[in-house]
Amino acid sequence: MNINKQDCIAFDKADPLRHCQDRFTIEPGQVYLDGNSLGALPNHTPAQIENTIKREWGVDLIKSWNKAGWFELAGVLGDRIGELVGANAGQIVVCDNTTINLFKAIHAALGINAHRNKIIAHKGDFPTDLYIIEGAAGSAGRDIQIELIDDESTMVDSFTPDVAVVVLSQVNYKSGALMDMKEITRKAHEAGILIIWDLCHSAGALSVELDECHVDFAIGCSYKYLNGGPGAPAFIYAAKQHHNVMKQPLSGWWSHSNPFDFAHQYTPAEGIKRMLSGTQPILSLCGVGAGLDTFSGVSMDSIRQKSMALCQLFMDLVTQQCSEYSLDIIGPVNSNLRGSHVSIAYEHGYPVVQAMIEQGVTGDFRAPNLMRFGFTPLYISYEQIWNAVSILKNCLDREVWKDPNYARTSSIVT
Amino acid sequence: MNINKQDCIAFDKADPLRHCQDRFTIEPGQVYLDGNSLGALPNHTPAQIENTIKREWGVDLIKSWNKAGWFELAGVLGDRIGELVGANAGQIVVCDNTTINLFKAIHAALGINAHRNKIIAHKGDFPTDLYIIEGAAGSAGRDIQIELIDDESTMVDSFTPDVAVVVLSQVNYKSGALMDMKEITRKAHEAGILIIWDLCHSAGALSVELDECHVDFAIGCSYKYLNGGPGAPAFIYAAKQHHNVMKQPLSGWWSHSNPFDFAHQYTPAEGIKRMLSGTQPILSLCGVGAGLDTFSGVSMDSIRQKSMALCQLFMDLVTQQCSEYSLDIIGPVNSNLRGSHVSIAYEHGYPVVQAMIEQGVTGDFRAPNLMRFGFTPLYISYEQIWNAVSILKNCLDREVWKDPNYARTSSIVT
Repeated sequence: MNINKQDCIAFDKADPLRHCQDRFTIEPGQVYLDGNSLGALPNHTPAQIENTIKREWGVDLIKSWNKAGWFELAGVLGDRIGELVGANAGQIVVCDNTTINLFKAIHAALGINAHRNKIIAHKGDFPTDLYIIEGAAGSAGRDIQIELIDDESTMVDSFTPDVAVVVLSQVNYKSGALMDMKEITRKAHEAGILIIWDLCHSAGALSVELDECHVDFAIGCSYKYLNGGPGAPAFIYAAKQHHNVMKQPLSGWWSHSNPFDFAHQYTPAEGIKRMLSGTQPILSLCGVGAGLDTFSGVSMDSIRQKSMALCQLFMDLVTQQCSEYSLDIIGPVNSNLRGSHVSIAYEHGYPVVQAMIEQGVTGDFRAPNLMRFGFTPLYISYEQIWNAVSILKNCLDREVWKDPNYARTSSIVT
Repeated sequence: MNINKQDCIAFDKADPLRHCQDRFTIEPGQVYLDGNSLGALPNHTPAQIENTIKREWGVDLIKSWNKAGWFELAGVLGDRIGELVGANAGQIVVCDNTTINLFKAIHAALGINAHRNKIIAHKGDFPTDLYIIEGAAGSAGRDIQIELIDDESTMVDSFTPDVAVVVLSQVNYKSGALMDMKEITRKAHEAGILIIWDLCHSAGALSVELDECHVDFAIGCSYKYLNGGPGAPAFIYAAKQHHNVMKQPLSGWWSHSNPFDFAHQYTPAEGIKRMLSGTQPILSLCGVGAGLDTFSGVSMDSIRQKSMALCQLFMDLVTQQCSEYSLDIIGPVNSNLRGSHVSIAYEHGYPVVQAMIEQGVTGDFRAPNLMRFGFTPLYISYEQIWNAVSILKNCLDREVWKDPNYARTSSIVT
């Protein structure tokens, strides 16, 4: 049975998160399906950052490290992210970036599993994860082998007694496939392996349960579904039981047990502060706080429900409207096995995405042929999904790949 | 011959940098002598960051990575800092923080001097440098010995053939003593040692000549004399001749030769990009750009001249006005052997600094007994120096250490 635009408008009327759209500043008429790359601007972010700049920095100056709580911000924001990813307080700090935090987590895990010498990761994960695994392995002080798996169905067969740590993304940045965090973590632990989860494409988009799944370490960014702003600092989670044994080599003064004693020798702090390193960029950290405010009064469960509904509607409409084209929706067909984005393999993916952007629908492109569309439940409506698919179909019908204006150039997207 | 207030007012009238005060927003009546901890707010920073937030992020969203040049900002800002520290283009990137950049520099240097196993550093340098030296040495993959020297007059005797790298601050964060970068670098090189200079207390305050001194690596922060804002990203310099051989383990995608190929294996970029790691905090980076604008049309030579004059005036006035108290100005008595701050050892240093802050003169305190006053040539006037010393004397005369309001509490200051 066909879905029509009126159905989508009816879905919006029944949407319990509908009011959340008003928390964001998005140009009228824009359908922004790239919040999984850079989250949209929350309404109150400009004023909050202006306050930090003009009052905290401009007037109170150096006093603000204490008075405005700048020095504690990494932990305060970490606890707030913890509420969204199922982590009790005192286990997350917001600092540095995903890459650097993964470096710390791997070092910590290799230090704990000191008699095992292999790291397993997924070949399909975002490349910076794979690159920094090389960097961490190379600075571990012992020979570490890296094994990249690419078939998750047989992955646990690789969980052998020589493996120290597994690094996995909860949601794949291309296919959108959602891993079973609880089961995989359990299997890893059964084999004596520590696990690090990358939450870049899941934090803020679905119900993550770090504590309940007994995850060891996790990292993630704050500039996608958490709406923290471009390049905003990332977060790192370390389960409480590892706090007193974990070590990481980025041993700066913010991770010192008594940074203001100005001792000559490094003594690591107790608790999650051990995962800090040096001074953090306060204006960007302030953006993370403002981004987290957009989750006020909203349950992760309601976000997950809407995320699945948006993905399913998009997939259903693409199937319904564009069946004459050889579009291939990759990853799970069932939205409860996905994160909050859908990628479509298509030979003319690049020009189609460019043409859609020109018509006000922003998705992104992933080499070699993927059109990727992210659905942020807080600000995407069902009607927008209808409009996006209509414009997709229009671009296909117009055969935009024949237009040289949409030829490929470089672009940055994550 | 005594100096009086009228003399100071006359110095201001003759000051070629006098107009630069108008580039900053400082509360009326405030004498801010802590720009060496957190530089003051440039006038145009709020509007520039607001533009980045509202237009680049809010309207252009993901497009801004290319359109607004976010992805190239680390190098663009690096070149601009290069103009202030004597580095030709293509040798500096702005990224991460001082601690993390020092970690990269040490790894790079240890990799180049792979047959030497000792790091020399100065015991009196800012502790995070010493802490991260431990972290870098511990992750170098071979036994590295750390030797902390504390007498710079005999330091070069330690430059033995087993030393791989020397890490030094150009200006000591406590005493303000200025090291002879050219001569020490030459001595290090004679002994086959690579040198890393920490410019946190010199960049933007005096004429640094990295290329001319043949420095190997340098790092520094942007939130002191460069006015980049609280915790703004730091910079790292690597001399061109090291670019193709240097390696650092924070091998994230921003340091990859072709980050958008999304290859599975890490291949380091050519040039200074090799010192990057992951995604950078754009709002805070934007603050660095606005901070650098305050140097427009001003030569580092004129800044240095005024810096020395301010320091000398302060020291002379303290000697003239406060001789009845046992204040001990530490470090060189001659301002041309100093950076741009002056520390005074005094048993009641903490309460005196607190009382001065209450009277509108912001300096800071360094344990165990140092009152530290920084003089940013762009916004400090000679008359303000007169006023600061008058208030210092007033606090001494009032014996403020007897007032329980000024008892010690914790504070953050760098």
